[in-house]
Amino acid sequence: MADIENCDLKSLSPLQLFEKVTEQGEKVRALKAGKAPKDEIDAAVRMLLSLKLSYKTATGQDYQAGLPPRDLASINNGTKEEDEDLVDPWTVQTSNAKGVDFDKLIVRFGSSKIDTDLINRIERATGQKPHRFLRRGIFFSHRDMDQILQAYENKKSFYLYTGRGPSSQAMHVGHLIPFIFTKWLQEVFDVPLVIQLTDDEKYLWKDLTTEKAYEYSIENAKDIIACGFDVNKTFIFSDLDYLGTSTGFYKNIVKVQKHVTFNQVKGIFGFTDSDCIGKISFPAIQAAPSFSSSFPQIFNGKENIQCLIPCAIDQDPYFRMTRDVAPRIGLLKPALMHSVFFPALQGAQTKMSASDPNSSIFLTDSPKQIKTKINKHAFSGGRDTIEEHRKYGGNCDVDVSFMYLTFFLEDDDRLEQLKQAYTSGELLTGELKKVLIETLQPLVAAHQERRKQVTDEIVKQFMTPRKLAFEF
Amino acid sequence: MADIENCDLKSLSPLQLFEKVTEQGEKVRALKAGKAPKDEIDAAVRMLLSLKLSYKTATGQDYQAGLPPRDLASINNGTKEEDEDLVDPWTVQTSNAKGVDFDKLIVRFGSSKIDTDLINRIERATGQKPHRFLRRGIFFSHRDMDQILQAYENKKSFYLYTGRGPSSQAMHVGHLIPFIFTKWLQEVFDVPLVIQLTDDEKYLWKDLTTEKAYEYSIENAKDIIACGFDVNKTFIFSDLDYLGTSTGFYKNIVKVQKHVTFNQVKGIFGFTDSDCIGKISFPAIQAAPSFSSSFPQIFNGKENIQCLIPCAIDQDPYFRMTRDVAPRIGLLKPALMHSVFFPALQGAQTKMSASDPNSSIFLTDSPKQIKTKINKHAFSGGRDTIEEHRKYGGNCDVDVSFMYLTFFLEDDDRLEQLKQAYTSGELLTGELKKVLIETLQPLVAAHQERRKQVTDEIVKQFMTPRKLAFEF
Repeated sequence: MADIENCDLKSLSPLQLFEKVTEQGEKVRALKAGKAPKDEIDAAVRMLLSLKLSYKTATGQDYQAGLPPRDLASINNGTKEEDEDLVDPWTVQTSNAKGVDFDKLIVRFGSSKIDTDLINRIERATGQKPHRFLRRGIFFSHRDMDQILQAYENKKSFYLYTGRGPSSQAMHVGHLIPFIFTKWLQEVFDVPLVIQLTDDEKYLWKDLTTEKAYEYSIENAKDIIACGFDVNKTFIFSDLDYLGTSTGFYKNIVKVQKHVTFNQVKGIFGFTDSDCIGKISFPAIQAAPSFSSSFPQIFNGKENIQCLIPCAIDQDPYFRMTRDVAPRIGLLKPALMHSVFFPALQGAQTKMSASDPNSSIFLTDSPKQIKTKINKHAFSGGRDTIEEHRKYGGNCDVDVSFMYLTFFLEDDDRLEQLKQAYTSGELLTGELKKVLIETLQPLVAAHQERRKQVTDEIVKQFMTPRKLAFEF
Repeated sequence: MADIENCDLKSLSPLQLFEKVTEQGEKVRALKAGKAPKDEIDAAVRMLLSLKLSYKTATGQDYQAGLPPRDLASINNGTKEEDEDLVDPWTVQTSNAKGVDFDKLIVRFGSSKIDTDLINRIERATGQKPHRFLRRGIFFSHRDMDQILQAYENKKSFYLYTGRGPSSQAMHVGHLIPFIFTKWLQEVFDVPLVIQLTDDEKYLWKDLTTEKAYEYSIENAKDIIACGFDVNKTFIFSDLDYLGTSTGFYKNIVKVQKHVTFNQVKGIFGFTDSDCIGKISFPAIQAAPSFSSSFPQIFNGKENIQCLIPCAIDQDPYFRMTRDVAPRIGLLKPALMHSVFFPALQGAQTKMSASDPNSSIFLTDSPKQIKTKINKHAFSGGRDTIEEHRKYGGNCDVDVSFMYLTFFLEDDDRLEQLKQAYTSGELLTGELKKVLIETLQPLVAAHQERRKQVTDEIVKQFMTPRKLAFEF
């Protein structure tokens, strides 16, 4: 069947292909509605997917129902390179409503997929059920986790490093993803953790004073602490502050800076000659906490303690650079675990951004604000009318409320039920949103409650360079 | 006369001009030897100078006796730009045996000449006889010294900042110039002083470990301390060490780094895309000590204390950049006083360099080594034979021994006597060298003696961030 169809499809124009996809989509829906035999439906779905692929190959765009191919003039037949998603530490953008193609990113970035084998191995090593972020592919990619686990299985420990750029006082729920997962890693592996607040980066990139950037660091530290980190195992630091209080940090920064050229950072980060020298040398400052000698107080000056960095995949360029430099300065490459992005309310084409209040649910939002934002802005994969929705069902792949539930709803069975009910048309968009609202409201309220308990004294404790409760 | 000669000269080839200069030179010598009337000799000398100028205009090179014009093919008639001396923080090179043309450098760098008026004003303000480096034009150029003096006359003080790149354990006598002068400034103005040891720079530029660079810092600090600085008024710091112990230094560095682009450092320092990001961002680290807030321990966090930087003029590019940035980050521009370079033993075409042992008299040299080096390597402005020397006299403008005496012989009258005796031919090269040897040997020996007294404990005192004995 694939042969026949490929043969036919090559002679078709993008518009003809568009009509073929639409036709096949209607056929699949009709089969489903008519409760046709499963194998008949499956075959029709395979044909639909194949047609969609042909459409994308010909046009460079994903098929979107009701939207005929645009920019026909710019499309050449079959030789056009596929659109690449834009993913770097400053921009995440894709034309696909399902979000960035993360499998493709693994190939592009040269990392490895977190597969079932690895998840099982983590479960065996820690004796704990894997976190929902692992079970659901939210942390989906890694570098050198096998090494981390092998060492750990042989009683050799490691430390965790993650961070945040404090660009504003307000953090949103998406910002919590790496911290929720890092907290889990810290607990199940029982390891120390350092958290970098790159207020110097925010000073360099934004229209901020150093004082303001540092103030954001302190405010953000409170939200991070409210995630429940153990003060005896966690050191949080602001670059603007810690660089002037650590004898090891600057030495590692200058070592990295000696081994990275402008050509390299131009290639990795897209810097230009008009960028300030602060931006150009900043990557070394995000690299240096990957080396235990940057924290002489914590690790007693030991240089050879392995580091594991959980982070969103847009931060990977920093650590590709770090891993390239590490052996040349006699230090260990950090291992990594990468998460997907937390989508904006308006859809997974871009990530949630604190600078766009309508795209974000903030940790300071009231239950009412959460309800209003989700009802008003959360992009729906449902149909235009209740009748259509009941008939054809909703699309969980593009529905932002459903995506958020995969991040925050712990119960796997409940999530699967919601998916099936929404896909079949049984569950309406408003009902799905209600589940999300009822999931998020108590989570955010509990966070606010914990944050209230975080006094200035507690912040000071977390941010004081000191020995943590570990022996290496 | 000038008219006739200019008219004639334009039609001459470089080689014909070379011969004319040679011929006129012989004429001048003959007149002098024959004790011709003064005005006749003066006219012949003027003619000789004019011919030399024409030669230089046509060839782009200074006339050198016995060396006909080279690279004739590359010379075009009269339109060629004059050779510029090469002066930047890493290279000092000129084709002129008298050394770099410092008056031209003042125009090129846009600084101001230290003239008699300024020297007199310093004398009035301090009540002290101006240092021989001022009297003899060794510190010859400045920026904003009028401002420093006006404020000082109104009882508003300032602080001094100078530094050194510790590229090796061994310092040579030329390295002492800024420190000898800075010590004098500190004494006569009674002001605090910070001395930066840029071991991070040396790590970035040289094949050194950070440990080795830091070791050189400590060794160099001993030589600097041996110049006689007062521990109560002086703070010496290694970048590799101090950056990690100061809450103010990194903040100023990152402020400078935000306001300087790669394009700018490319223009100022000649960096390329292949340079490491450490070099590219380093200028901000040399800039930051120009701001008193980099030393919160010393100045109690005050941001508005004026800085004066005595340094060799090759360091000016760093401070042109600093002065450009300062008002944009709300800080005061540092003032500057520039010295000439200390010439290499082989001649003033380049400065003394520790990486070429034959070009340098080290602070560790024995009396015998000093004697041998001067006798063997010091470029002489004397004649080839005693007879010629007695007859025509030596040339103090290119004689390295005489140049060194202008740096180290305190007695103005004695220096003038030596100059006249050498120029007239009365004093032979060997005799002049003997005066230099007898001047330098006790100076170096005394330095060695003082250095022996500098214990590790004393170094530690100088290098400990602390309040200095001043109120602002």
